[in-house]
Amino acid sequence: MKNSARLLSDLLERVAEVGRTLRSYPPGQTGILDQCHVLLSSKGEATSLATAREILDRFPNLAPGEKHDFFCRLLSEFGPDMTATAASIAAWQATPDSATLRRLHFASEPRSQELVRRLNRAPGGTGGVVAMRKDLLACLKAEPGLKALDDDFRHLLSSWFNRGFLELRQITWSTPAEILERIITYEAVHEIGDWSDLRRRVAEPDRRLYAFFHPALHADPLIFVEVALTREVPEKIGTILAAQREITHPNQARTAVFYSISNCQEGLRGISFGNFLIKQVVEELRKELPNLTTFVTLSPVPGLRRWAEAETLPSALRATVAQIARSGAVPDQAMAELAAFYLAGTDGSGSGARDPVARFHLGNGARLERIHANADPSPKGMRESWGVMVNYLYDLKDIEANHEAYNGGGAIVCGPVVEKTLNKIQKV
Amino acid sequence: MKNSARLLSDLLERVAEVGRTLRSYPPGQTGILDQCHVLLSSKGEATSLATAREILDRFPNLAPGEKHDFFCRLLSEFGPDMTATAASIAAWQATPDSATLRRLHFASEPRSQELVRRLNRAPGGTGGVVAMRKDLLACLKAEPGLKALDDDFRHLLSSWFNRGFLELRQITWSTPAEILERIITYEAVHEIGDWSDLRRRVAEPDRRLYAFFHPALHADPLIFVEVALTREVPEKIGTILAAQREITHPNQARTAVFYSISNCQEGLRGISFGNFLIKQVVEELRKELPNLTTFVTLSPVPGLRRWAEAETLPSALRATVAQIARSGAVPDQAMAELAAFYLAGTDGSGSGARDPVARFHLGNGARLERIHANADPSPKGMRESWGVMVNYLYDLKDIEANHEAYNGGGAIVCGPVVEKTLNKIQKV
Amino acid sequence: MKNSARLLSDLLERVAEVGRTLRSYPPGQTGILDQCHVLLSSKGEATSLATAREILDRFPNLAPGEKHDFFCRLLSEFGPDMTATAASIAAWQATPDSATLRRLHFASEPRSQELVRRLNRAPGGTGGVVAMRKDLLACLKAEPGLKALDDDFRHLLSSWFNRGFLELRQITWSTPAEILERIITYEAVHEIGDWSDLRRRVAEPDRRLYAFFHPALHADPLIFVEVALTREVPEKIGTILAAQREITHPNQARTAVFYSISNCQEGLRGISFGNFLIKQVVEELRKELPNLTTFVTLSPVPGLRRWAEAETLPSALRATVAQIARSGAVPDQAMAELAAFYLAGTDGSGSGARDPVARFHLGNGARLERIHANADPSPKGMRESWGVMVNYLYDLKDIEANHEAYNGGGAIVCGPVVEKTLNKIQKV
Amino acid sequence: MKNSARLLSDLLERVAEVGRTLRSYPPGQTGILDQCHVLLSSKGEATSLATAREILDRFPNLAPGEKHDFFCRLLSEFGPDMTATAASIAAWQATPDSATLRRLHFASEPRSQELVRRLNRAPGGTGGVVAMRKDLLACLKAEPGLKALDDDFRHLLSSWFNRGFLELRQITWSTPAEILERIITYEAVHEIGDWSDLRRRVAEPDRRLYAFFHPALHADPLIFVEVALTREVPEKIGTILAAQREITHPNQARTAVFYSISNCQEGLRGISFGNFLIKQVVEELRKELPNLTTFVTLSPVPGLRRWAEAETLPSALRATVAQIARSGAVPDQAMAELAAFYLAGTDGSGSGARDPVARFHLGNGARLERIHANADPSPKGMRESWGVMVNYLYDLKDIEANHEAYNGGGAIVCGPVVEKTLNKIQKV
Repeated sequence: MKNSARLLSDLLERVAEVGRTLRSYPPGQTGILDQCHVLLSSKGEATSLATAREILDRFPNLAPGEKHDFFCRLLSEFGPDMTATAASIAAWQATPDSATLRRLHFASEPRSQELVRRLNRAPGGTGGVVAMRKDLLACLKAEPGLKALDDDFRHLLSSWFNRGFLELRQITWSTPAEILERIITYEAVHEIGDWSDLRRRVAEPDRRLYAFFHPALHADPLIFVEVALTREVPEKIGTILAAQREITHPNQARTAVFYSISNCQEGLRGISFGNFLIKQVVEELRKELPNLTTFVTLSPVPGLRRWAEAETLPSALRATVAQIARSGAVPDQAMAELAAFYLAGTDGSGSGARDPVARFHLGNGARLERIHANADPSPKGMRESWGVMVNYLYDLKDIEANHEAYNGGGAIVCGPVVEKTLNKIQKV
Repeated sequence: MKNSARLLSDLLERVAEVGRTLRSYPPGQTGILDQCHVLLSSKGEATSLATAREILDRFPNLAPGEKHDFFCRLLSEFGPDMTATAASIAAWQATPDSATLRRLHFASEPRSQELVRRLNRAPGGTGGVVAMRKDLLACLKAEPGLKALDDDFRHLLSSWFNRGFLELRQITWSTPAEILERIITYEAVHEIGDWSDLRRRVAEPDRRLYAFFHPALHADPLIFVEVALTREVPEKIGTILAAQREITHPNQARTAVFYSISNCQEGLRGISFGNFLIKQVVEELRKELPNLTTFVTLSPVPGLRRWAEAETLPSALRATVAQIARSGAVPDQAMAELAAFYLAGTDGSGSGARDPVARFHLGNGARLERIHANADPSPKGMRESWGVMVNYLYDLKDIEANHEAYNGGGAIVCGPVVEKTLNKIQKV
Repeated sequence: MKNSARLLSDLLERVAEVGRTLRSYPPGQTGILDQCHVLLSSKGEATSLATAREILDRFPNLAPGEKHDFFCRLLSEFGPDMTATAASIAAWQATPDSATLRRLHFASEPRSQELVRRLNRAPGGTGGVVAMRKDLLACLKAEPGLKALDDDFRHLLSSWFNRGFLELRQITWSTPAEILERIITYEAVHEIGDWSDLRRRVAEPDRRLYAFFHPALHADPLIFVEVALTREVPEKIGTILAAQREITHPNQARTAVFYSISNCQEGLRGISFGNFLIKQVVEELRKELPNLTTFVTLSPVPGLRRWAEAETLPSALRATVAQIARSGAVPDQAMAELAAFYLAGTDGSGSGARDPVARFHLGNGARLERIHANADPSPKGMRESWGVMVNYLYDLKDIEANHEAYNGGGAIVCGPVVEKTLNKIQKV
Repeated sequence: MKNSARLLSDLLERVAEVGRTLRSYPPGQTGILDQCHVLLSSKGEATSLATAREILDRFPNLAPGEKHDFFCRLLSEFGPDMTATAASIAAWQATPDSATLRRLHFASEPRSQELVRRLNRAPGGTGGVVAMRKDLLACLKAEPGLKALDDDFRHLLSSWFNRGFLELRQITWSTPAEILERIITYEAVHEIGDWSDLRRRVAEPDRRLYAFFHPALHADPLIFVEVALTREVPEKIGTILAAQREITHPNQARTAVFYSISNCQEGLRGISFGNFLIKQVVEELRKELPNLTTFVTLSPVPGLRRWAEAETLPSALRATVAQIARSGAVPDQAMAELAAFYLAGTDGSGSGARDPVARFHLGNGARLERIHANADPSPKGMRESWGVMVNYLYDLKDIEANHEAYNGGGAIVCGPVVEKTLNKIQKV
């Protein structure tokens, strides 16, 4: 806490210099921060909406440094009302009951929250606030003190993007092109090469794509998942992405494979929808296709290689890494052992599994089912994990128990094959 | 504050007795309050949604007394975390900067807020929370201490029902019957007798009905306004509501009359949409019918008679009231003077105009334009205001100025005719 | 044929007198028949559409006599081109092959067909043509010679309202009010009392209503069927129409009862949709509710009483009719025998079953399953059939065979209970 | 007529040989023609639909020769009923009135019409019939006698695709991808390179694309037109198709340019929608953008070069052609004169203008406004017309008059600039 408090005062000093710039930007006109103050004190509702809209229109045109200063000034100038807070504290201390305590909470609300609420009311305001937070997150890296401001954004966005307001839609070849175009842009796992590639992923009978939408973000998805319907659990991504392949009739599929999950809105980072998305898609698919018995992912292992090359490993695994470095490859079993050790272990920090994708699926209640070497020979796959991919299994009857075991005590539940691999390593 | 604090401790004592009842309701099952505690501490997301749904399903079946106790227990058991708050206060006092102050705000959040957020995430949760608040408002009358709990509901509902999420729709004879049925039910000013009456109000070429909807409340409007397109500003409600009347072609109308505005959701009381509704409808109408020049209401004066019979009035007006009491009627001019005195005056409490409908329109920036005696001979009209009705004028170029004048200093802007009437009274 | 040819020349004479009226109607303006000639010879397409629209707008305002004359003049003035036909006949006789024969067909097309086609092209033209045929059918009674003109209308409307263009929609409480209002108006079997009655028929979980629509008749249904989902096959209409009754959960229903079928467009008489409607609704219901095993009607017997009071009956049945005349009632069994005799017999004219409703369902492939005395005590039910109602059974595996047996040889297929009743009568 | 009758008997002979093949195709199964006979005599409606569907499913898989034979057999085996026709002729000759004449028309209807009607009733039948006619048109070239069969198809399709059933839709970037994909495929004038090219044509503010749809052809357009909104009348196609160009704000546009019109359904050839499409689009645009004053095409001249290289021309023009042959180019004015002579002249056959695109627009009532040399340097443009393009002007007040002048007497209306060019040639 000390640390971030220091950073905060540092940055406020620096901000002081550029204050005038912001205030008078552009020359001869009211500065954007002045407009924020106007917005907060505004009583006229039409002017209030117009001011909000202007702020949202001007903000994206600020230079990076100006954005940084804008946020720092928001943090310092739009904090809670100190006098009111102090009075509320005194009131609570005099009468320490639930009512005075609740009043203290409202009295200490940062004014930046009301500011963001008013921005959100403008036509198209929600999209503007999400875009603004994207910039805030970018500034956060250099200026950790802005975390306190981001708390406001995250608090409000969590409330507005709560699950009850989201709408699940299947994306098909009848979906408006403006949405499909965004799917191409947002796909973050297995790039969509062109419209033909997209068509295969949404229009072939054994492929599905589902997305979450929020009513205030028109035609702009929040997150989506791509599904392949197959007979067996797949071991390689190539069999799923191939342009030429045999189609499985949906009624003969036994397995639904979640082979790509992409978050679309950088500005909603930390507000999780993926969990709900997968579960709701499982519900949809089970209703439509009662023949499906297995729900599984085919997932990348983005952190494997960086971890293996940086950490001190048990000697057997160290040998594996060395062999890869020499010859570019190792036997599948050796690769699987290395990956199992990485995936099933924790880094001791209490933040769960080492791998971010593992954290997501284990946190949702999936279990670590299978590990496949040579599953993704793409440049990205080789660069991140020497081509290793993983199946996480969503077994409906165990999801809640797994979820609580992981979130409670950090237990990583593995399927029998992975268990066996792990036992082998431990014996070594 | 003392007062409500006292009330609070009183009620908590009484609640103690019924605690066991609630907790064990129904016998052999977990009590609904226990479920609230479970919901708040839940980590599994599926069970969390299921628990939320169960609470919302059980709540409406509680007896009135049980609901009262439920809210009192929410207030006392789901307040802020005292320990965390105390620590945050200490931290702020040690380092009194923006960051510690902001943390104090989050640390002191009542747990009831998170509880309501989790209820809202259930399928259909938003409707359930709105319904719950309706009951809370009913309990509030007997138990003012519950105001502190209602602050949480209102805070969250204001955030979720913010203007950026609302959708304006014109209601026509092509609207689904389930929505039209609700319009009939919700109409609170001039009762809709049956489906034929409704049909006239939505399907005749010179009648319009617009409503606001929220995406989470399917097919259930929040507020609606009924509009008549006329040549002249109307002086009596009868000419508008008549089943047999001459239709005005929309292109020949000069005036749009807002003759009925109804709030639909008791549970959203205090979260104002009417202002936006009127302004957006004005925009829609101007775009569609550029020939419209005048936007005006024909409004009831619900508080006139109760006020006139209770207050000490200037002698001339006292004579008017006495004459009405004797003969049931007075000359129009005398009635208009009485009403003008009532409408243009304030009660000195600083809460604005005396009449609630006046407060709404003046607060929106309309001005008090005309007063009509014998305008509403219905039983309700006679009972509330001896048949007096009022035109409030929405003059686009003055709305913002009027709005700020009223909300700033409580200035009630009147049109020239009303001004003249008022001058006459003052001379007397 | 002689007969109708005579009638035709009679009417043409009479028409001659009123010709000038029509031609100059309204005074100072082109007559509607002149406009028809203009339309037929028009080459400009915009003027053509405008002329068509004008004819359709003027026609409904003609007095009944004027409509009659209008149709007679269409018949006589817009027949086939005699010269061209004669030439085509000569060509065919010279070269009697398929090509000359086909040309003869096109050459002899009545000009009234092209006229109706051009009327149909106007905006909203299809509705206008359907309305015009309704009037034509009304004139047909007094003027059988107009049948030749009606052949053109029926030929074209059959083509335009072919099954491939129809759309089946379920009517629910979310359906636009303008459609629901028409359902109330068009219901021809069991009157819909008001909107609450309608609501029960479309919104209760064990009630369904399906209608066919045509894209060119916006919001105006062609035909609809009302369905009750029940456990058992019902024996009385009262149990279905009751406002207060126990709801059957759709998943526990075994039987779908078609209890009311109404044609909506008088102008489409003779163009049958009912057959397709029932079959498509059976498909929809089976897909949605696999638990349904029995598809059956509960139908009126509109012709029973008139027939029984007019025909010479076997003595046992004559006694039944006499007893009803005396005491107003007979034992159920006697009534069932009377009805069975009526329903299962034919009138010898080769036009199938005696009863029109029986003709419809037997013609669709249903069988006569059960007969219920005292099933419809409404005034209409008593007036038409002394309260008798009937179940026709749609047994999917037999429909085609029954259909062909009936349409081929007029065989009326009965269920075992009706067979038994019939045997009993024959023994008597 | 002789000629086509001869061809007909020739082909029937040849068909006789392959009859057995068709009838027994595929071996051990009913032949497709036998199925047609079954369909025509079918009384059961479900089997009828199933048979129709089977015929439509089998037909596309026939080999080209089999299709040819199929149509020839339809022509010979599904003609009018000769006996009934002969009887009707006799009846008419006995009583030569309107009624007997009308009966003759119905009696002589080719059975192929009823066959096509029954095919059309199958699910998706309309699309199947349109596809079948496409093949019929292909066979027609080699076998002109099939024209008599095509008359049936064209007669029925004209009736089903009449203007009253068509729906105009604007195609935008929100249109389902499956429709946009077909637009790319069907564009016949200026090829759409890829989805980015399409996006420019439908999503940029000064570009529009409108299409006609028929309710029985889901997601499959009939015809579409592409529109550019510009300030001036454009002289080159390049300025319209350029990927990088300045956008014109729609409110500042004065001109709507129809720069591409494509028919989509080969099987609907000869059933014209383009005329209605252009006029309805003009209506839409005028309503939306009252600032538009000029509606004009920028059209290709597909027949210019073939004509110029084949015909005997006046000496001045012959010199122009010779010069092009030598040097590949001529001065713009010489090219414009050559094109004017081509476009404004007729070929004396009474079939109107020489150029097919000219015939279309002049027939719609447009006038020949401007001729531009070097307007389309694409390979197709050079190959067809040495790069010449033309503006046809749709001047609303003259359309009907021009239309009738052209269709009546073949008058080609030209604008003043073209008139001047023509005068110059004539003087030469």
